[in-house]
Amino acid sequence: MAAKNVYLFSEGKAEMRELLGGKGANLAEMTRIGLPVPPGFTVTTEACREYFSRGGGIWAELEEEVKAALGRLEEQTGKRFGCRDNPLLISVRSGSVFSMPGMMDTILNLGLNDETVQGLAKVSGNERFAYDCYRRFIQMFADVVLKVEHFNFEMALENKKKALGVRYDTELDASALKELVSEYKKIVARETRKQFPEEPVNQLMLSIQAVFDSWNNHRAVVYRQINNLPDHLGTAVNIQAMVFGNLGEDSGTGVAFTRNPSDGTNELYGEFLINAQGEDVVAGIRTPLPIARMADYMPEAYRQLTRLCRLLEEHYRDVQDIEFTVEKNRLYLLQTRAGKRTANAAVKIAVDMADLGLISREEALLRVNPAQLSQLLHRRIDPAARLDIIARGLPASPGAATGRVVFQADDAERLGGEGEKVILVRPETTPDDIHGIVAAQGILTSRGGMTSHAAVVARGMGKPCVSGCEELEIDLAARQFTAAGRRFKEGDLISIDGSGGQVIAGAVPLIDPVLSDEFTRLLTWADEKRRLGVRSNADTPEDARKAREFGAEGIGLCRTEHMFMSQDRLPVVQQMILAKTPEERRQALDKLLPMQQGDFTAIFEAMAGFPVTIRLLDPPLHEFLPKFEDLLVEVTLLKERKGDPQLLKEKEELLRSVRTHQEFNPMLGHRGCRLGLVTPEIYRMQAVAIFRAAAGLIRRGIPVRPEVMIPLVGHENELKPLRALVEEAAAGVMAETGVRIEYLVGTMIELPRACVAAGRIAAHADFFSFGTNDLTQTTFGFSRDDAEGKFLLSYLQQKILPNNPFEVLDREGVGELVTMAADRGRAARPEIKLGVCGEHGGEPSSIGFFHQAGLHYVSCSPYRVPVARLAAAQAALMHR
Amino acid sequence: MAAKNVYLFSEGKAEMRELLGGKGANLAEMTRIGLPVPPGFTVTTEACREYFSRGGGIWAELEEEVKAALGRLEEQTGKRFGCRDNPLLISVRSGSVFSMPGMMDTILNLGLNDETVQGLAKVSGNERFAYDCYRRFIQMFADVVLKVEHFNFEMALENKKKALGVRYDTELDASALKELVSEYKKIVARETRKQFPEEPVNQLMLSIQAVFDSWNNHRAVVYRQINNLPDHLGTAVNIQAMVFGNLGEDSGTGVAFTRNPSDGTNELYGEFLINAQGEDVVAGIRTPLPIARMADYMPEAYRQLTRLCRLLEEHYRDVQDIEFTVEKNRLYLLQTRAGKRTANAAVKIAVDMADLGLISREEALLRVNPAQLSQLLHRRIDPAARLDIIARGLPASPGAATGRVVFQADDAERLGGEGEKVILVRPETTPDDIHGIVAAQGILTSRGGMTSHAAVVARGMGKPCVSGCEELEIDLAARQFTAAGRRFKEGDLISIDGSGGQVIAGAVPLIDPVLSDEFTRLLTWADEKRRLGVRSNADTPEDARKAREFGAEGIGLCRTEHMFMSQDRLPVVQQMILAKTPEERRQALDKLLPMQQGDFTAIFEAMAGFPVTIRLLDPPLHEFLPKFEDLLVEVTLLKERKGDPQLLKEKEELLRSVRTHQEFNPMLGHRGCRLGLVTPEIYRMQAVAIFRAAAGLIRRGIPVRPEVMIPLVGHENELKPLRALVEEAAAGVMAETGVRIEYLVGTMIELPRACVAAGRIAAHADFFSFGTNDLTQTTFGFSRDDAEGKFLLSYLQQKILPNNPFEVLDREGVGELVTMAADRGRAARPEIKLGVCGEHGGEPSSIGFFHQAGLHYVSCSPYRVPVARLAAAQAALMHR
Repeated sequence: MAAKNVYLFSEGKAEMRELLGGKGANLAEMTRIGLPVPPGFTVTTEACREYFSRGGGIWAELEEEVKAALGRLEEQTGKRFGCRDNPLLISVRSGSVFSMPGMMDTILNLGLNDETVQGLAKVSGNERFAYDCYRRFIQMFADVVLKVEHFNFEMALENKKKALGVRYDTELDASALKELVSEYKKIVARETRKQFPEEPVNQLMLSIQAVFDSWNNHRAVVYRQINNLPDHLGTAVNIQAMVFGNLGEDSGTGVAFTRNPSDGTNELYGEFLINAQGEDVVAGIRTPLPIARMADYMPEAYRQLTRLCRLLEEHYRDVQDIEFTVEKNRLYLLQTRAGKRTANAAVKIAVDMADLGLISREEALLRVNPAQLSQLLHRRIDPAARLDIIARGLPASPGAATGRVVFQADDAERLGGEGEKVILVRPETTPDDIHGIVAAQGILTSRGGMTSHAAVVARGMGKPCVSGCEELEIDLAARQFTAAGRRFKEGDLISIDGSGGQVIAGAVPLIDPVLSDEFTRLLTWADEKRRLGVRSNADTPEDARKAREFGAEGIGLCRTEHMFMSQDRLPVVQQMILAKTPEERRQALDKLLPMQQGDFTAIFEAMAGFPVTIRLLDPPLHEFLPKFEDLLVEVTLLKERKGDPQLLKEKEELLRSVRTHQEFNPMLGHRGCRLGLVTPEIYRMQAVAIFRAAAGLIRRGIPVRPEVMIPLVGHENELKPLRALVEEAAAGVMAETGVRIEYLVGTMIELPRACVAAGRIAAHADFFSFGTNDLTQTTFGFSRDDAEGKFLLSYLQQKILPNNPFEVLDREGVGELVTMAADRGRAARPEIKLGVCGEHGGEPSSIGFFHQAGLHYVSCSPYRVPVARLAAAQAALMHR
Repeated sequence: MAAKNVYLFSEGKAEMRELLGGKGANLAEMTRIGLPVPPGFTVTTEACREYFSRGGGIWAELEEEVKAALGRLEEQTGKRFGCRDNPLLISVRSGSVFSMPGMMDTILNLGLNDETVQGLAKVSGNERFAYDCYRRFIQMFADVVLKVEHFNFEMALENKKKALGVRYDTELDASALKELVSEYKKIVARETRKQFPEEPVNQLMLSIQAVFDSWNNHRAVVYRQINNLPDHLGTAVNIQAMVFGNLGEDSGTGVAFTRNPSDGTNELYGEFLINAQGEDVVAGIRTPLPIARMADYMPEAYRQLTRLCRLLEEHYRDVQDIEFTVEKNRLYLLQTRAGKRTANAAVKIAVDMADLGLISREEALLRVNPAQLSQLLHRRIDPAARLDIIARGLPASPGAATGRVVFQADDAERLGGEGEKVILVRPETTPDDIHGIVAAQGILTSRGGMTSHAAVVARGMGKPCVSGCEELEIDLAARQFTAAGRRFKEGDLISIDGSGGQVIAGAVPLIDPVLSDEFTRLLTWADEKRRLGVRSNADTPEDARKAREFGAEGIGLCRTEHMFMSQDRLPVVQQMILAKTPEERRQALDKLLPMQQGDFTAIFEAMAGFPVTIRLLDPPLHEFLPKFEDLLVEVTLLKERKGDPQLLKEKEELLRSVRTHQEFNPMLGHRGCRLGLVTPEIYRMQAVAIFRAAAGLIRRGIPVRPEVMIPLVGHENELKPLRALVEEAAAGVMAETGVRIEYLVGTMIELPRACVAAGRIAAHADFFSFGTNDLTQTTFGFSRDDAEGKFLLSYLQQKILPNNPFEVLDREGVGELVTMAADRGRAARPEIKLGVCGEHGGEPSSIGFFHQAGLHYVSCSPYRVPVARLAAAQAALMHR
């Protein structure tokens, strides 16, 4: 038996979304609960798929079903389709399962032709209105069904106005519109070599076909691609009786939100226009009135709307965004859907609704998108501002900033010191630039990915950064850059949006973050529900304090390398690296020890009582050396200019050293525990600094819980001697100070081999912290810096990968290794503590995975802590 | 009950090696089978371990057992220990389970003192002999037991000779030796502040203790470290009655091999000295005689020796290396062990013995160390030559070569063209240098690892290469390098040994490889036993032919990138990479297509009938571009010199392009299938070239079995579209030529993610080829080029890793992933073909693993094919 292809609104309900599409199911639901919806019916998505499998064309059964449904509309409205006395007019709209821009536009007033237009004129008592409807219908139908370029009609309209010497469409009278109708039809005949279809049923069948076909138009296909939506679903078609808001002063049209979508206030919000159709609102010729004024113009309809809004919110248990029309004082609801809202509003609405008992606290927690939360924690660009965007890069560190362009870290520091706001613009940054990054409002680089030096340092400092902005051509010598064909010199004002990746010419208005009472309450509820702990990645006391403010329960990753990068320490670090004798190295380390101890003291103090996981030095040492490229140019020029031979000799020697330290693949090079094993003095110094700092604080009565973490372990034999080294340092400090320190020693799990060998590694580790950034890099064989600039975008466009695996954890690949490691680690050492400190630790869907994998905590950047708290609660609610 | 600490030789046997040590078990076995071995006994390794667990010192039970055994020696020899009339003298030697240099030296003549020496003089009728024995004993004992530096004794000896006006020790008469004995004892008293121990039992106990202690002396510890031997085993002590080869013209001593250890000839081989002790042979004052001459001097002993040699070979079923002494016409065997032999000899001996029925063919196969085989396939340095080694690097490609130093590829090409033999010396090589590598005898680089460009290209060409020779300081501008403080200029002669990594000043004598009949027969036996197929990695027709010669059954990896690197193609390849429009790229590809087709035609033809696995382009494209560093210097100088502005502009543009293509971690960058997915034109061109080449040959009646391999797949979605692309190209060529081509499409498994996802990937793959080089890099997170230069050596020294995982497959980590992938691949597609094409495919122990993992074939460089055939047979014999 053939499937039913057509459902009256009164036959459907909300749950039939897959069959009726989102809009169709919604109209059916509204009808079902007794709202005043103009009657109509839906051609199903199944019919659309059947249409494609038949290779196109409306088949007889479908046409029969549509006609039967039309018959029901005629009964309900008392009008007749194609009737010259009291014609039924209808709208045709697409409606797929997922809301999807790019599909066919709406066609209004279908059913008009040279005969029925007269009936409309008669019934409405307004000939001008009837011909205006007719002209609009022809234009819409020709555009979206017959593919006649709409400038043809616009030109005809312009010519008509010019000929009559009028300025606005509304000044055209009925006879002008009649002439226009006939000119429009000529255009159609000329462009399509066919007459405009006068027969209403024929108009309808062509429209249904056009809706089906629009499923595969270019914009729709691209949209599905970008949003990872499946291609096979197809679209439904919604056919509904027209109602008119433009039948006089007792008619009108508008849009209403049941609550304020911008700040969440519980009030009717929206606007309306008297004597107008929906498209007039969009056209922007007349300014709509605030919804509250409706009470003055049509008090009865307003009262009914207010009542229905309450009803809708109670029914759908969420804020609704409603389109309505009043036809001769009678209110019709055309659409209702969950209202889009700002992060701010989402939080307030969820908490308010829970307080009202409309939803439970659990539901409130599930109502807020965790990813949206971080919007609330950074300065952002006023959404109302108009932006002069000149380039787009990677959104490397969220937040927005405005400042004057500088190209050198020294200039940034100098001007910043004078109170000037600056944006540091560089091809890429190195540890040498750190003082400039500190002084700048934001960082913009033309190279490097989401884990480039600039990106990582900026995120750590909570400063906006746009990285890998390859459209920028920077000329350091001329102190200028070009973008979008325009030149920007040092001192010019620009802005960057590190949340979106935009670079903007000039200053922009910024909005400061304010954390509402509701925000705090929602997160308290989240804390009650979640099972995962939430720690923060923090390298400085400021970060640590910020993390505590946002509710972090400890530090999951304190990177010690950033401590080596400050202007005053770098020379000592370089001395340590380039030391020609053990003695020279020892001297440098002796200088670094008290500095490191000071760092740890400050961080432990800020995190008093909470665990602090300190990762021993991780990056390859050449990251601390001057840039090879700069040195090469310097030496080449010194030689050419026959400069100071002593200087040349020194520089040449430095160049040689730097070259020796260079690596082909630094990501896979001499870093992590490999440093600690080849040059144990460095780790020993760090361990002593950690325990001396701890001992000092404990003596002052401040509780300290250090967790020493060895990076990049792949084999148990790497961890074993380094654990011994740390234990020896601890024992030494305890003996020397007489203070007892409780501490843990563990390792990062960030290599595939570590996952395989996790059982054996666990024998020497009190904890595992999954470094999912590096694990993703090695599991995929993707260098993040290179992938994001070179091929990952293409992979996502081609849907080779569903997501950027550096943002959303790859469950199938990396995830299986994480699970393997967690299982083997637990089997070997049941009490082992398991956490995550890669960036996935702040990404909601990945947090869901970590919850399911049974980890104990996630750690993320301070600004992501609230996100993680909420996401962890949602994970606990969804996977109990 | 206490363990038995002492075993008479007559109580032990060969199987008791763990308890008695290698030497002790051997002496026992020799005794057991009735050979004339001087009687003796062994203190067990267990006693040694007990000694260490007691913290040192000879305990009472042990002393008692030793004394009891001494009593048995007295019975057997009719002499008495410490007796002034007919004293028993003994030797004391260490003997651990594994042969181990660095342990305590031998002590001979133990039991002598001021009284017993007179008995010895009387019994031997030779006072001079007796005192010479005594003086030697004191010196040995003082040196190895009492730790008195032996230069003390040498000085006393020198002084004595000077005082007496004689030149050789042998010119000292009995009274001079008596005086020397008393001087030696004074030295001992002075240096140790104790008298020399006169009591023979005391002498023996101190010696046993010294042997035990020597287990932990520095050289022994280092030796165990280097050779990965366990530290806990301990050593046995062998105590044996002395026999004397220096009792007159009817006595003597010598060494014999039962077959010629250098070429394997079945003849008694060795040398002997009349009237001498073992140490006289070593001292080198008298020239020993060839063993055959013994027949003239002591025919009876010689006949007996010959007979015993046969007996020993039959008993041990292997070539024996025998030490013997003749005391007054009576033959004693002091030691026998499996004789060390050259690769050549090993092959001949194994085959000869199998032919004789002495061993089975299976045993013959197990007798030859596969790793040794490759010695036979390359030119090598005459082992007799004295070498002036100036530096050591990595043994990157085996074989030896001599030639004149050149620093530029162009010079190599020019001089090579003139018939000059040259060695190309470079910091590192790039594709630009390929014509120089072709023209050179060998390659020497100061940077780069075992997989650097130079190493890979050289191995592919079978040319010797030493890479990463960091001791070399190359000054390209001055056309010279320094090493070991010496300067070598362009044109100077040097030699390199790519099997050992040595760089040698001057020319060296080279030996050409000749493959013996036995070699061929052994490998034929191997082919009958092995289950693994053996293919070769080959990029050129020459390689393919060489591989066939060595018995390869197809090509397992044909890298297409080397085809892009020749001087005439590189400009076209660069044009393709730097193309600004698709049209420009197409033009370049159109030029490359016929060249590639020609390459494949020649390779298919050389491999007619055998499968040829062709890997589509793998390396990142920037490898084909000019070097960034050179360009940067060029641009800097052009700017400084205000040179031709047009040229500057071009170079600057090229520099920008090259910079855009540069990568942070090329190993993890835009390479492999990522190229094929982002720029499908390249793969399409290659696929068309493959199938056109195949079609052309098939039409000529030559069978072709192409297997197209997609590199670096980590996700099934990468393989799916590329498989479709290859299939489309095949279908196109088949349609265009009307020729039917059987082919396979498969992928490399060289990323951890590919191992995890192997089941899903197998859905689109006819075969998997494990790329264990890259899989090792990503699983460990080791960049091979960096690791081997920076930290891997230290890892091996510290025993963090048991082996270099790039040489011997890491079974625990990488191996588990290989097994996982093989299992999942087979589960998803039972008929899937599984092979290996990483360098481990030519390494014997890794081949054993691949056999056990159930793979179908290994693929290795042509020169490793014989190694792999033998290793595969051994694997099949050991793991049936």
